[in-house]
Amino acid sequence: MCWTRVKHVLKVLYSYIRSLIGLLFLLIVYSLIGAFIFRAIEAPYETEQKAIIKKERKEIIEQFVNFTNLPVLNETELRNQLFNLLKDYEEEVYTAYKTGVSLSVTKPKWDFYTALFYCGTVYTTIGYGHIYPSTTLGQIVTIIYAFIGIPLALITLADMGKRFTFGIKFVLAFLSQICKSRCCRKMYFGYEVDTEFNVNFYLALTIVIVYMFLGAFIYTRWEAWTYFEAVYFIFISISTIGFGDIIPAHPKFFLLSSVYVFIGLSLVSMCINVAIVYFTQQIDKAKVNIGRATEMAMERTNKTFSLAKGKMHEMSIKMNNHHHHDHSPDRDHNVHHHSGENGHQKKHNHNIFKVNFKNGHVHGRHRHGRNSI
Amino acid sequence: MCWTRVKHVLKVLYSYIRSLIGLLFLLIVYSLIGAFIFRAIEAPYETEQKAIIKKERKEIIEQFVNFTNLPVLNETELRNQLFNLLKDYEEEVYTAYKTGVSLSVTKPKWDFYTALFYCGTVYTTIGYGHIYPSTTLGQIVTIIYAFIGIPLALITLADMGKRFTFGIKFVLAFLSQICKSRCCRKMYFGYEVDTEFNVNFYLALTIVIVYMFLGAFIYTRWEAWTYFEAVYFIFISISTIGFGDIIPAHPKFFLLSSVYVFIGLSLVSMCINVAIVYFTQQIDKAKVNIGRATEMAMERTNKTFSLAKGKMHEMSIKMNNHHHHDHSPDRDHNVHHHSGENGHQKKHNHNIFKVNFKNGHVHGRHRHGRNSI
Repeated sequence: MCWTRVKHVLKVLYSYIRSLIGLLFLLIVYSLIGAFIFRAIEAPYETEQKAIIKKERKEIIEQFVNFTNLPVLNETELRNQLFNLLKDYEEEVYTAYKTGVSLSVTKPKWDFYTALFYCGTVYTTIGYGHIYPSTTLGQIVTIIYAFIGIPLALITLADMGKRFTFGIKFVLAFLSQICKSRCCRKMYFGYEVDTEFNVNFYLALTIVIVYMFLGAFIYTRWEAWTYFEAVYFIFISISTIGFGDIIPAHPKFFLLSSVYVFIGLSLVSMCINVAIVYFTQQIDKAKVNIGRATEMAMERTNKTFSLAKGKMHEMSIKMNNHHHHDHSPDRDHNVHHHSGENGHQKKHNHNIFKVNFKNGHVHGRHRHGRNSI
Repeated sequence: MCWTRVKHVLKVLYSYIRSLIGLLFLLIVYSLIGAFIFRAIEAPYETEQKAIIKKERKEIIEQFVNFTNLPVLNETELRNQLFNLLKDYEEEVYTAYKTGVSLSVTKPKWDFYTALFYCGTVYTTIGYGHIYPSTTLGQIVTIIYAFIGIPLALITLADMGKRFTFGIKFVLAFLSQICKSRCCRKMYFGYEVDTEFNVNFYLALTIVIVYMFLGAFIYTRWEAWTYFEAVYFIFISISTIGFGDIIPAHPKFFLLSSVYVFIGLSLVSMCINVAIVYFTQQIDKAKVNIGRATEMAMERTNKTFSLAKGKMHEMSIKMNNHHHHDHSPDRDHNVHHHSGENGHQKKHNHNIFKVNFKNGHVHGRHRHGRNSI
């Protein structure tokens, strides 16, 4: 009996993440297509560049050999010559590094897995920069790829974030049920669970931080990082800063790492949305309080100066009736005060601004003029 | 007379961006504080590292000199020795490059302006990675700095994006006035301008693209880039990918570049928000169409089987009255169909999910048992 209930809950959960699976599938297909294209564009250029730099290194070695064959120079002169040669060599190495070619790493930079990883760094906007296109064609394709990929990734991450809020609420409701009943048979699943971002902000933040600190343990197992370096890498990744100063060295874990980072990104997306809802509510509350304070202050003022203000109040009412669209600041506060109770608050948050500058004196003349021509 | 009107419009515009100025001021102060802190942490470490690498280079030169003092070796042997030495040297250069120290660049990496630029790459999440903290303290401070800075930058960018939609609507309304009246005196400023993201999506996208392509001209003037490289740099920056493969070389233009990129980021923020509104509307429209199609199909079905379904319909009404909260899919479609006209649509988009699995048979027994203990 308990099992049928669990099955039912699992079915509900599955039906709920079905739309997400579609989005994720689309993103995976898009990644695979991108990896094929970028490897096809960048790999040939890479081998070409490597050959050029190898040749240059050989030439520098020849120059050194020539030095030793020369009649023995003054030692300081020799030193200067060597220094200059080394400087040239240094420049070569820098250039190689900048174009993304490393001679000490024999493995090609643009194989299928790194290209796949590159696609991920583009559409998530992390952009570590340890792999980047060196050809103009690769750069053009990157721009086009990002134009489609970034919105797709944003939608997917936002959707995953929604599912996470759903999951959090579900777990919370479940736990409260367990606390109340202490028995599976007595559990009541009649609660409503939605995907609104109205979970507790501090809970959402805590989940992101716990996810960071727990994930760091896994990274220290498969990378030669300290625990803090792993935390730093995860933070730089899921915040999409992506300096690229620390990068997972083992390409086989790239994919697993990508999944971990992607879930982290969606948690951050959730946390940002929860924060927006939370702080908007806080600001609205503050507004209501200000409104109440203003009201109370006004009431006090009215009591004190009620006699003196009698005539002025009448005048202001007349004026308000005349310019009936012109809200005074105090009236706006009252509107905010009451708006908490009903659903018509939205209009007031849109910051509609009227540019009331009407020229009523001259009208219709030019149109008549044009018509008469 | 025309001038007073312009002045009035400027005043309205100013009062409208006042809150944005506060946010920008906060962000600038935050940047300056960050620049001071990061320079204080990173600059001493950098000079230390530079000294170490300079020493190592000297040692390698000494080794070369020793080679020439040795009795003449076999030429192939000499070549091998030189090759190995150069490889060691290459590793040194790589390590230097990775820790962010470049010997060919004499200017220190962590001066005040670069630290300021670094702060910008953190809170905008661009993270070029050409400057990054090499000390653990710097990394810790970066995490804390980002935790506050990223939300602040997001709010500021979203606010700037809002102002841009306001600006676009203002200009559009202004232009339509000019088209209608063709005379300043006849212009009517009684239109409403708000900051909702409901401007034309393709117009917003066009503005971002035009901003990119026009800005690229400026970059080609002060950097040694081709026109396309400048476009690529701008795209990689304002999409917050930030590979860091192309970086403005002239530090004096860093700040101007930052302003350009920051405006670009806010335009992208606007464009994303406009896209969300636009595509949500498109999806809603599609839903309404589906709803209408379903309704029409139902009507046709009802006409055909009206006699046969008479009794069943009665039954279903009875059932609906009994389970009066249980919406059938067809009823939901009708709700969607009508929801376009009023403001109560929101509830239906929240995807509320009811887990209705109630066990009504066993109730209250365990609680009574516990109370009796």
